[in-house]
Parts: sequence; structure tokens; C-alpha cells
Amino acid sequence: MKPVIILNFKAYREGILRMEEIVESAREINESGIAEVYLAPPLLYALKISENGIPVLAQHTDAISYGSHTGRIPPEMIGSAGLKGSLINHSERRLTLADIEFIISRFRELELISVVCTNNISTSRSASALRPDFVAIEPPELIGSGIPVSKAEPEIVEGSVRAVKDVNPSVRVLCGAGISRYEDLTSALELGAEGVLLASGVIRAKNPGEKLKELAGIEP
Amino acid sequence: MKPVIILNFKAYREGILRMEEIVESAREINESGIAEVYLAPPLLYALKISENGIPVLAQHTDAISYGSHTGRIPPEMIGSAGLKGSLINHSERRLTLADIEFIISRFRELELISVVCTNNISTSRSASALRPDFVAIEPPELIGSGIPVSKAEPEIVEGSVRAVKDVNPSVRVLCGAGISRYEDLTSALELGAEGVLLASGVIRAKNPGEKLKELAGIEP
Amino acid sequence: MKPVIILNFKAYREGILRMEEIVESAREINESGIAEVYLAPPLLYALKISENGIPVLAQHTDAISYGSHTGRIPPEMIGSAGLKGSLINHSERRLTLADIEFIISRFRELELISVVCTNNISTSRSASALRPDFVAIEPPELIGSGIPVSKAEPEIVEGSVRAVKDVNPSVRVLCGAGISRYEDLTSALELGAEGVLLASGVIRAKNPGEKLKELAGIEP
Amino acid sequence: MKPVIILNFKAYREGILRMEEIVESAREINESGIAEVYLAPPLLYALKISENGIPVLAQHTDAISYGSHTGRIPPEMIGSAGLKGSLINHSERRLTLADIEFIISRFRELELISVVCTNNISTSRSASALRPDFVAIEPPELIGSGIPVSKAEPEIVEGSVRAVKDVNPSVRVLCGAGISRYEDLTSALELGAEGVLLASGVIRAKNPGEKLKELAGIEP
Repeated sequence: MKPVIILNFKAYREGILRMEEIVESAREINESGIAEVYLAPPLLYALKISENGIPVLAQHTDAISYGSHTGRIPPEMIGSAGLKGSLINHSERRLTLADIEFIISRFRELELISVVCTNNISTSRSASALRPDFVAIEPPELIGSGIPVSKAEPEIVEGSVRAVKDVNPSVRVLCGAGISRYEDLTSALELGAEGVLLASGVIRAKNPGEKLKELAGIEP
Repeated sequence: MKPVIILNFKAYREGILRMEEIVESAREINESGIAEVYLAPPLLYALKISENGIPVLAQHTDAISYGSHTGRIPPEMIGSAGLKGSLINHSERRLTLADIEFIISRFRELELISVVCTNNISTSRSASALRPDFVAIEPPELIGSGIPVSKAEPEIVEGSVRAVKDVNPSVRVLCGAGISRYEDLTSALELGAEGVLLASGVIRAKNPGEKLKELAGIEP
Repeated sequence: MKPVIILNFKAYREGILRMEEIVESAREINESGIAEVYLAPPLLYALKISENGIPVLAQHTDAISYGSHTGRIPPEMIGSAGLKGSLINHSERRLTLADIEFIISRFRELELISVVCTNNISTSRSASALRPDFVAIEPPELIGSGIPVSKAEPEIVEGSVRAVKDVNPSVRVLCGAGISRYEDLTSALELGAEGVLLASGVIRAKNPGEKLKELAGIEP
Repeated sequence: MKPVIILNFKAYREGILRMEEIVESAREINESGIAEVYLAPPLLYALKISENGIPVLAQHTDAISYGSHTGRIPPEMIGSAGLKGSLINHSERRLTLADIEFIISRFRELELISVVCTNNISTSRSASALRPDFVAIEPPELIGSGIPVSKAEPEIVEGSVRAVKDVNPSVRVLCGAGISRYEDLTSALELGAEGVLLASGVIRAKNPGEKLKELAGIEP
């Protein structure tokens, strides 16, 4: 299976300014078949990028149905807008256990991709019991640090992979926090993860488009 | 001054299905000069409608700056995406006092339109001290009721207008909750408001495009 | 093992007015050895009841440590005040997955009792992976209904027991929502639960002290 | 009018360990008539201190009524437990504008003391429009810093006093953040405030009881 790369734009200004070249690199990587890239831009830009033919994940979805809700996005709208799925419970947007379960269940019915973020082995185990498509383990203290979790705390990645597969072998594990280089991706794969979730390492790089391709293993 | 009509799509499925005809009616009304219509679609669709030349308000903005925030939209992004402003503190998306103040201040610097929703005379007075462009008074028990606040509790509208103008005469007052007909708009204006904020009365109508034009006073 | 009865006072006025007789009945039941009663009064009254020698659970604990936090109670303070543990993630006070895990972990180190509330089989399974002492399954739609979950949806109780024991046999399951009579307790035990969590069925009864004893199986 | 001193224990361990001597000093100051001290201990300890005859404020109250709420304290319970009032909207426990208004209104009916915390001149003005008893201005960046706001940003205190009195002369202003010495209290009074709100400066002092008396102006 090809490694999965999810690029979270967060609310970085750089991501908006350099959106075009990032989109272009994502397309190139996906066409090369070397990896499977998903972009997670701010909600305002999600539809636009998705209509460009790039697989897009929302950064957040709300645990509601269509209806009388202001400033919220239900799972059904993620689907009807053509997005592929969503990050769920990112450390910068934590959700209750009941809401995580609601969103994952609806996504399963709607055939949308659920990527639940977790912060340690124990929450990874717990999240995998809800049967999401992906669990992305991101120790909060390493987010944005430039220190890859695969180097700083490889045992958290290995432990999470073990815990998740033990509960539910079909859940895939991503490795997040501090990821920026090709070797961070390969280390993650060696530890048993099936891909990476990253943000600033690419978005805030001098040449984010080039950086993304390097990360995927395309020689400059 | 022309009456202001803000149409909140909420997360109603109907708003997405009938988006085109609603956009068309908004354009027609704005071109006629009879009223000033702003559309507040779900965040996912805001950019698309805005690029169609219709003035768009976000349904929600977060009290943050550009940076490491996932699933959030800073005021600066509202501006750089070309939206005109945002609803703030809608009853379905309440904010802290500190966050409301932060967003209004940034909007003032960025020349974006701030529409703060309030639930009674006292919060209307308090909100107007923060100098937003609009205070939209919406008694929560009337939202989605079909009973216009201008009829059910005209004293709340009059009292809010008085309280707001007393604190800050340049803040404009909108009347929300239960609005669906032309006479609800004219009643609101008679009570001293400068327009209306509404949602289901148009969005869930049989012919939302027609309904919006009727509301604005365009004969069918 | 004796059945466990956790009585949540919520913020009912009746619980405060009738506190003395409820405390007296709890003492009587505990001394009889027929069941194990824990009282969960409002935080303001927890210390007072605990100092009367009744085992007390907090209604809520925060996912923090001692320090600069206002209006919050850390796990350590639950212990140093002499309480036995806490309800965690009650449907009226939902917590994030990360916070639930934090509190359960700290409680384990501090030898405090963790009672995690869940809303369906899937969240029961997920919560049990965090190794709390108890999972209390309470379908939100039945809370305060007077219709016991053991009657309305016995399959949710059985399914939760199975799911929890499958993940971690040492986690005990409580049955909540709609409980008020002795036969609700015995039904819960027959479905595999080890006790009940209840509130209005006793607290708002005409004679809450008597009602509690009846629930425990003490003949009037 | 005597200066008001509100001592927030936060969730500091020191406050619990040294509770007795702090209570003793508060009593001594209040009996001396030199100042008016209110203690704001963690909710778990509020009743106990209050029953010792010291005026107690809760650190937080919820915007609810008596009823089906778990882990929450309604205004009515603050009163029936004998507390004098509550901090509202502390920077570590921010509330929505609607909730702040709800609590202040209920407190007025129940004759409880409302102390609303604010973070700048603009929110001070806005909060005073809700007619609380006190507005406590605390620039968040100075909380726990040891640098008194009266020294670091005197213009914020003066500006808040002016803004508050302009909206509602009967609202009293307290000066918070970085307060620890008698001269911080006198500076606050000189800038037009009517007292101080403080925490770590006394609670974490070597001898918190002595420190509190010094702060109030009692020579050691």
C-alpha cells in the first residue's frame, strides 16, 4: 500500500499565499503513484481545492446533522461538497468522546475518510475501538517543534501501532508532529505507521511545493 | 439608508440545494437598490458565492490570528478570502466576551463588517459598547418559530434600539428571529431597526428565491 | 460482589433540601452490607457529606494539575479532600477524549475511583480501553425519563457489558438512565451490570430517603 | 468606603495546605475594619470556610437554574449555601456574553455579589453595561507575573475606571494581575480602583497569612 501523506494547512498565512504550488505538487505526487497525498486546507478554501481534483480533507467536522446550526459543518455536507473526509479531534480542536463517535459512525455510512488525532498510546487504543479509517498519533509537545516524533519518541509510535492493530487491525496509523523530511516518512513506515500527518514542516518551508515533493521521495 | 437583509443559510440542506436561485435573487435585489442583501452560507460555500459577486458574511469567525490553529478561521482570512465580514456570537455559536471584543477590534482594523447577535436588551447594550457595525437582537425562543420578534416582543426590539443608540448611535440594529415576510421587515423598520437577520423563513420556504424577493418588497 | 448504587444529586434543589435523610439512608444501606452506595452531591456540598463518613464521588473533575486554574478541581484535590473519586464525562458535562484519559490515568495513580459515563455500545467499548474502574452506560434520551434503560433498551446494556468485558474484564459496568425501583436494579444485574447510576428517580421522589432504601432492596 | 481585597485561591496546593492561617488573617483584617476581605477558595472548600464566618465568593458559577445539571453550580445554590457571591468570567474560566448577563441578573435578584473579570478597557466598558457589583480588570499577560498592573499598565486601570464609571457610576472597579504588596493596593486606589483581586502573590508566599495582612496595611 502506498504511504499516505496528509498535509494540514492549519491557519497559516503561508498556506494561502502558496496554495497554488502546494496543490500542484500534491497533484504531481498523486499522479506519480509514489504516495497518496491529501490536503487539509482551511474550510474556506476546501471546496476550491477539491474542485481542482485534489483529494481534500476538512480540518474539522461537527457532530451534528443538517439543520438549525450556525457556523458548523455536518458530516453530510462534507460529502455533498465533494470532500473525501476530515481530520477529527486535532489537538487544536479537541472533541468529546461522544462527538468523535458520532462523526466516525456517520462517516462510515457516508463512505467518508475519518482521521482521528490522538495524543498517546492510551487514547490511540481508545480511538481505534471506534473503528475510524486512520488514527494519527501526535504527541502535542512535539507539534510544530521540527523534532520528528519518530526520532524523539519512537516507542509512542510503535506502542500506538501495536495498541491500534490489537484492537482493530483494519485501522491504519499515521505518525504526526515534527515531520518535515523524507527520512521522517521512512522512519514512520519502519515503525509500523502507514503514513504521516504534517503541517508547518511543509507549509512554512521556503519552497513548500518543493518541500512536499521531497518529503514524498521525489528527487529535486 | 436602504434596509439591510442578512440571510443565514445555517446548516440547512435546503440552502445548499437551492443555492443558485437564492444567489440569483440576492443579486437582483442588490441591483434593484431596494435593499442591501448579505448572504451567510456555510463556511465551505462562502468563497464560491463571494466569487459570484454577492456580498458574503461568514457564519462564524474565530478569535485568533494567522498561525497554528486547526479547524479555525481568523479575521484576517475572512478579509483575504474576499468576504465582507461575519456573524459573531450567533445563539447557535456563542462566544466569550473577550473573544467577541477581539474579533470586533480586528474587524474594525481590517474594515470588515461585524454583526454581533444578542439575546435581550441587556446584552444588546453590552455588545454595542464594543462598537460593532451591527447588533442583531434575536430572542432565542423565537428563532425558527415563524413568529416574528417584531410581533411577539416588540418591546425587546424597541428597547434594544434605544439601549444600543444610547451607548453608541453609530451602531445599527437588526431584528432577528421568526422573520419571513415583507411586513416583518417593515415592522422591524418601524420599531427603529435598520434591517433583519433571518434564516429558515426563506431558506426552507418552498421557493426560497421568490420568498427572498418578496421579503425585500419586490412584487412577484 | 455487592451491587453498586451511585446517586447523582445533579443540581436539583430537592437534593439539598433533603440531604440529611438521603445521607442517613446511604449510611444505613452501607452498614447493612446489602449494597455499596456512593453519593455524588454538588461540589459545594461534597466535603461536608464526605466528612460525615459517607463515600462521596465528585460530579466532575477537571483534567488539570494543581496550579493556576480558577473554578476548576484537579484530581489531586479530589483525593486530598477525602472524596473517593468522581463521575467523569457525564452526558451533562461531556469531556474530550484526551481529558477523559488524563483524569482516569491520574485517578489510577491516586487510587481514586473513576466512573466514566458513555452513551452507547461503541463509546462504552472505547472508554473501557482507558481502564477506568466503572463504565456507566446512559442513553441520553432516557435520562430523567422514568423509563429504565434495562427495559427500554436492554440490548444496549447487554451489548455494553459484552463490549467492555471483551476489551477489559476488570472494568465494571453500571446501568444508568430511568432507574428508580428495586426491580430496575435487579434487571440491571441480570443483564450483566454490576450496579446502577441514578438521579431524579430518588432525588425527586416524595421521600428520597425511603426511596433509596427501597431501591437497594430494604423493605419499608 | 473601605478598600476591597478579593483573594483567589485558584487550584494552588499551597492554598489548601495553608488555608487555616489565611482564614485567620482574613478574619483579623475584617475585624480591624481596615479593609474588606473576601476569600475565593476552590468550590470544594467554599462551604467550610464560609461556615467559619468569613465572606466567601465562589470561583465560578454556571448560567443555569436548579435542575438536571451535573457538575454545575447555579446562582441559587451559591445563595442557599451561604456564599456571598462569585467571580464571573475569570480569564481562566471565560464565559459567553449571554451567560455573564444571565448570572449577573440572577445575582441581582438574589442579592449576591457579582465580580466580573475583564481583560481590557473595551471589555470593562461592555461588562459594566450589565450592571455587576464589581468589574475586575486583569490584563491576562500580567496574571501571576508579580508585576502589578498598576505599575506596568496604569493607563489600563485608569481607562477602565473611566469607562466603567461613564457607563454606570455604581459599578466598582478592582485592579487585578501581579498584585502582592501594600503599595500595589494603594497604587490601585490612587488610580481610581476600589480594591484589588489577587492570587499567587499571597497564596504562594512563604507566609501567606502574614502576607495577606501586610497587603491590607497591617504592620507585622
